[in-house]
Order: sequence, then structure tokens, then C-alpha cells
Amino acid sequence: MSVKKPSIAKGTRDFNAAQVAKRSHIFEVMAKHFKRFGFEPIETPSFEKNETLMGKYGDEGDQLLFKILNSGNFLSKVAEADLTLENHSKLTSKITEKALRYDLTVPFARYVVQHQNELTFPFKRYQMQPVWRADRPQKGRFREFYQCDADVIGSDSIWQEVDFIQLYDQVFTDLGLKGVCLKINHRKILEGIAEVIDAQDKLLDFTVALDKLDKIGIDGVKKEMMAKGIAEASVEKLVPILALKGDDLFEKLTVIEALFSESEAGKQGVAELRFILAQVQHIGLDALAMDLDLTLARGLNYYTGSIFEVKAPKEVGIGSIGGGGRYDDLTGIFGLKGMSGVGISFGVDRIYLAMEHLNLLGDTETTQPQILFVNFGDKEALHSAKAIAQLRKEGIRCELYPDSAKLKKQFAYAHKKAIPYVVMVGSEEIENDTYTVKNMEKGSQETVNLSSLLKIVLS
Amino acid sequence: MSVKKPSIAKGTRDFNAAQVAKRSHIFEVMAKHFKRFGFEPIETPSFEKNETLMGKYGDEGDQLLFKILNSGNFLSKVAEADLTLENHSKLTSKITEKALRYDLTVPFARYVVQHQNELTFPFKRYQMQPVWRADRPQKGRFREFYQCDADVIGSDSIWQEVDFIQLYDQVFTDLGLKGVCLKINHRKILEGIAEVIDAQDKLLDFTVALDKLDKIGIDGVKKEMMAKGIAEASVEKLVPILALKGDDLFEKLTVIEALFSESEAGKQGVAELRFILAQVQHIGLDALAMDLDLTLARGLNYYTGSIFEVKAPKEVGIGSIGGGGRYDDLTGIFGLKGMSGVGISFGVDRIYLAMEHLNLLGDTETTQPQILFVNFGDKEALHSAKAIAQLRKEGIRCELYPDSAKLKKQFAYAHKKAIPYVVMVGSEEIENDTYTVKNMEKGSQETVNLSSLLKIVLS
Repeated sequence: MSVKKPSIAKGTRDFNAAQVAKRSHIFEVMAKHFKRFGFEPIETPSFEKNETLMGKYGDEGDQLLFKILNSGNFLSKVAEADLTLENHSKLTSKITEKALRYDLTVPFARYVVQHQNELTFPFKRYQMQPVWRADRPQKGRFREFYQCDADVIGSDSIWQEVDFIQLYDQVFTDLGLKGVCLKINHRKILEGIAEVIDAQDKLLDFTVALDKLDKIGIDGVKKEMMAKGIAEASVEKLVPILALKGDDLFEKLTVIEALFSESEAGKQGVAELRFILAQVQHIGLDALAMDLDLTLARGLNYYTGSIFEVKAPKEVGIGSIGGGGRYDDLTGIFGLKGMSGVGISFGVDRIYLAMEHLNLLGDTETTQPQILFVNFGDKEALHSAKAIAQLRKEGIRCELYPDSAKLKKQFAYAHKKAIPYVVMVGSEEIENDTYTVKNMEKGSQETVNLSSLLKIVLS
Repeated sequence: MSVKKPSIAKGTRDFNAAQVAKRSHIFEVMAKHFKRFGFEPIETPSFEKNETLMGKYGDEGDQLLFKILNSGNFLSKVAEADLTLENHSKLTSKITEKALRYDLTVPFARYVVQHQNELTFPFKRYQMQPVWRADRPQKGRFREFYQCDADVIGSDSIWQEVDFIQLYDQVFTDLGLKGVCLKINHRKILEGIAEVIDAQDKLLDFTVALDKLDKIGIDGVKKEMMAKGIAEASVEKLVPILALKGDDLFEKLTVIEALFSESEAGKQGVAELRFILAQVQHIGLDALAMDLDLTLARGLNYYTGSIFEVKAPKEVGIGSIGGGGRYDDLTGIFGLKGMSGVGISFGVDRIYLAMEHLNLLGDTETTQPQILFVNFGDKEALHSAKAIAQLRKEGIRCELYPDSAKLKKQFAYAHKKAIPYVVMVGSEEIENDTYTVKNMEKGSQETVNLSSLLKIVLS
């Protein structure tokens, strides 16, 4: 009987030891800095009640939730009359009551509201767990992937933003990722621009047109904006934004502010970004570059203040590797009003890709054994096993080849697994309590006692 | 409008920072020893194709799989005629094609078969990931929980068993769990007993009766066995087993072996356990006690050799905290025949409960900040933020209180979060470049420079 070779579900991945080690390195660096910045870890369940998740990500998001079929007779709550092919969307709510989480933000909001009496506010948490989306899989996009988030809830202070920018900086510095750029914008600046162009509903057209500035020039952008129905007088007002040049973000903010003589929102947005950028400049950054990007809205309507997006180094060509911002009413969806939140997210899969592209993951600590003891038979194996037990207590990763197979086979095993030392214990070694150790890279060989063996492996 | 307070799905849990830290401690100890014993980490996806999981755990197991509803119009592959309330079990296979994994063993077998050409055999892997079961939740039993498994596949050698017993010993020693007992049995000894009592199908009755020995005595057990239809002559043959006493496992094996004059399987089982126990005795154990338990079958029919079960210290009263054994044809279900496997599992949730019961988790490293900097306003905050940036680079966990709130409120925050040091920076400190640090436990206070502050916190 021939059996079909098994495979994994679409959009999911297996990780081998080398990949686990590299990913763990990234997670550990993040966790280290999250803790240094005063964030504490929490973990929430993989699935949540539908009522917790549904309606929080828009219609499109609801479609991307992986819903879990009720156990047992899942049709027990369905009426015969409702059981028709056309009725599938209504049936969903009868036959499922929970779904895999789509992100970590909504479960975090649920956590804060559910545990509000146990928490100290402002509450600072980090969370590194997988999320699932029934997206169409494509290069670098998976149906199961990790998110790494840090958020503060219960504080209006924009010192939090100052802290988050430093947090990004320290993580990317520690990972060795140079050339990362943090783009920043502010919801209230976008509101100010909407006031200037006389319509909140034209804001998307404005950002889309502005995004083409490099390609089509100022006149092209102006034309496109007018084609989209933005009045010529409004477009003229925006010319200073279109003409923004140079690296001085404060100068840019001054230019933008000049537009906002009649927009309180716009003024406030500029003032907040100016404060944030000034503090960051005083404190200093190690690896991160900063940029102002008025096209940044990040799709999500829930940002109410600062908006962040982190771009990978240009030469890597993979775009965004993180993002975040301030949202003023996240927990309001669960009945807890007036809690301002701000947070950031790291895109681990893309950070991994960027680091691999730049050869930054080569030196990650390996988990391979350091010594293989050859098996010449039970008597020799027992002698080796005693030495192995002692070496493991010294922290050495080592193992006995399980069978007294041909020497060639045992050495091939060590070679394939890149085990650096092979130890042979025969009758002579047992008698003298010694170990013949072969350095697999150099090919050299010597016979030593156990403490010397330990020194050789640790050297 | 009043909103219902949100809650989590039945049988799932949130973990707060203290719980995450304690659980991480257990995971880290396990991972450390897995690596020392030569196991490498792998990770597999949370959900697998139904064809991978279904039929691997028996009918009962299939019922406990959390199945994921197909995305989009999940009825698109269903014929109108099949859409009836009675037809729910057949419908399942039309509207779902994947499920959350039930354990780590079947995904591991799938991994080995799928990646067989990339692996070096014998392949030793460990895996620490959550699994999901639609079980009825009860004390200590959850619908989402972690398994921590180590397995070797592709080796018949019972030196693997010797190694696994040492692995259990080293993990429990490192966790500080004294009084853990590893019970061992062998499938072939059970087969031998079945031959002695003339029926494989009476084996369960035998083990159930034997289990009552302490309560009902030898005569009671004999009576019960006969009542279950085991012939009197067979029961008499078993008397030596019923009369087994003392702590000498080798003596017990000799008694058992005497029964097996006509059972090759029984003889082989005894010989294997004798070999394993002898090697373990020669090498020595630090914390683990060993016992022979002829009632041990672990429900699972797939064990073909040694069978392990680990019992928590008696005073804890929670029973099994791990188990494992040898299975000769795990990958056969996916078409790869002739690969003997052996493995063990750690029950993290129960180990956690046992350690908590014994106060072994109190000293787990905390993730709380070490310093809170009081916020007296933006000028002082900036000065503090510069110091904070430097302290974090030295590895100190510290933060600025985000608002210039009342001092009492800021100290209350430090107190509630058990932050040991509070630093105040006012105009005088800015002028002198000093920091006034309060030891929250002692109540003492001193004004020092930054390097002295670092020393105080590290002391």
C-alpha cells in the first residue's frame, strides 16, 4: 500500500532547529528590551469568544477570522428551516462560538477590562504570541505568524511616545539592523489637512496623490488632487507641503504648522510631534533614523494621535517591519471608557527576512551537541555514559551514539550534525580512565582525562 | 449603555506577568536539559490538515479535536440533499479541512516523514508548544495547555531509555522537585502475563485487580480475578506477582521472570528492563526514585516496549506529571515503516501546580522594573529620561512615571508594582547632576551620582 506523503496546511510553516534558534534570538532580544523599558509579559488564550473578536476589525477582518466549529453535534442549535445553502453566513454564528485570535490588541483590550481590578495603571504589557488570519498566503505572508507588541494603557502622556521610539531604537541596535527608519505622523495633522482641503472624505485622495510626489512631481500631484475633486484653492494651500524638502523635521513641522492657522487639531498635532521629536533628539538614538511622513495613516481608523511605521533598511526591499500609534478608546469597545492607549508592534517574520538578507543571523547560538561519544558496545557505552552525565552537569551538550554501529556510520552522524568533537572510549581508555577526543574540524586527536576533555570543549 | 464585561472561552486561561515568569522558568529548565541531552528544538503549525490528525487518537480523540470552519462560504462543497440536521457528522468533513493539534506526537511523526530527506537519523527533537482538546474543563485540566516532549526516532537501542530516565532526573533535580517517582513497565511483560493467564483480553481485568492489592489484599485480588473469568490455575501462577515486596527492583524482575518460562515476549521484557535499570543504577540518579509498576499501561495502545509514568511527590496529591515510552511504528501511519521511536513528555501545568504547592516558585526572577523615576514636569523628565537611557544600556529595568501627577500617586504606583527604588530628580539634582534615590523597602534615601545609583541598584 502506498501512502501519500503528508503535508502541512496552506500558509503554515514548520521550523527546524536552526530556524527556531534564529527566531528565538530575535524574541529574546525583544523581550530583554521590553523588560528594560518596564513592560511586563502577559499571555492570552489562542482562541477567544466570537463576541470578543467579531466587529473589531471591520467586515474584511471578520472574514479573515478562523472560526472553530462547535464540538459534538454542532447543528444542535440550528433550526431545520435555517439549514439552507444560501444561509451560510447566518449559520456561522449558530455553529461556531469562538475563533483564533486575529491580533494581540483586541485580546489585550479584553484582558485589561476583564482584569481591571487586579492591574496597576498605567498598565504596561508586552506580548509575543502567534496570531492567525485566513489571508491568501503569499511570499512573506502566512496564516500563522507571531506578533510582538508592547502597549501602555491608561496614560495620556506623550512621554510614552518618546519611550517607544527609544524602544524601537534599542531593539534594532541590539539586533544589529542598521538603516531602519521610523516614519511618524499624527492623526490630528491629518485632521488639520482635511480641514484645509474642506473634506475629511478627501483625505485618502490627498495621501494617495502625495505618495506619488517622487514619481509625478508637484504639478502632477496638484492635477491628481483636483481630478479627485479637491478645490483648486485648497490644493494651492497645500503647495508648501508638496514642496517640503530636506532632513530637518522641525523645519518641516514649522512649514506644516503655517497651514493650520484655523485648525486647532492641526496645531495640536504639530505641537505633539514637535515635543516628541525634541525629547528624542535630546536623549539621542543609536541606530534609528526618523522621518515625517504625511501619507502615513496605517489603514486603521483607531489611531487618534501619533502614528508610527518602521521601514526595513532600503537595500532589503521588504518595506514595513513594525508600526503602532496612539488610540484613545481601545477598551471602550468592552465598556471601559476614557483609557488612552499607545503601543507598537514588531513584525518578527519580516525582521527575520531582513536580518537573513543582511547576514545578521549567521552567528546565532547553535543547539547542536558539542560531543558525540562513539558506541563500541555496552561495556564501553556505560563508561561513556558516566562521563556524559558529568559533562552535562557542567553544561556541555553531549550524547552517546545509541548503537554499536560501524565506526564510519557513527562518524557520519557526527559530521552531518556538525558535532565538533567525537570521543572514543575503548578498553585501553577504560583501564586508564581516559578519553580519546577527535577535533572534527582539524582532524587532530588526543587522549586526555575528563577534566582536560571539558577544557578542550569549552576552549 | 451598559456593556457586558468580557470573558474568555471555557477551559482557557490568561497568564499575568508573575505566572508567565514562573512558567518561563520551568520551560527554560526543560529546554536547557533537552539541549544538554542532544535534542534539538522544532516547531510545527498550530493547526494541521484533518487527514493528518483524524483517526490517530481513536474515536474519542477525534471527538476532542477542535475543527476549524472553512473560510468564506463553507457550504460551497455541500450538496443541498446532504444538508440535514441528522447528517452533522458527515457534514463535518465537508465544511472543515483542518483542526488544532491534539498533541505533539502526531505532528512530530508528520514532520519526520515530510522532512525525512533533510534529517539525520536517529533524529532527536524536543518541542514545547500548546495543544488543544475539546475536553470537559475541570480542575487542572484545560482546553489549551502546553506539552513538552522529547523523542528519538530511528533507533532500537534501549540506551535511549537509559538516557530518558537521566533526563527526567536532571530536570526534576534542577527544578528542586524532590520525591518524584518514575514508574516503569514493559509492554512485553504485559504480553507475557497475558500468555500466562491465557488471554490478551483479560489483561485489563488483571491490571485493575492488581491495582487494588493494597486495599483488598492478595485473597481479594485473586477472588476478583476469578470473578472476571481468569482461570484459577492462571491466578495461582500469578501469586508470586501479587506477593512482590520490597524495594529491590532486580529481585522483583527475577520473580516475574520465573513466570515466563514459556513466554519469549515476557522474557525479553524482563531482560530489557533489567538492562535499563542496571545502567541507570551504575550511572546514578540525583533526585528521581524508580519503581516497577505492572499496572502501568497508559491507556495508549501504541507503546510497544518500555512504558514510563512520572508521579509527583506524594504530599502534593496530583498524580502523574509526565510519561512516555517506546513505540515501534509511529511514522508508519504516514508511510515510513520500520522507524522505532521512544519519547517522554512533561506535564507543565501539573509540574507548576506541584512546585507551587511546595513553594518552589517563589524565587523565580521577577520582570518588574527596578527603578521608577518620579515625573516633576517636562524639564525634570527629560533629565531623567537621559539617565534612564543610560541605565537601560547597563541592563537595568527602569521607567519614568508618564505624568507629573501628585507625588503620592507616583509613589503608590511604585508600591503597587513592588518597584524597589524610586528616584527623584528636581532642579537641585539637575544642577548637580545627581539623583535622589529612595529604597522603598527600608525607607532610606540618599543623593548620589549616576554610577553610584547603578551600583546601588545592582547591589
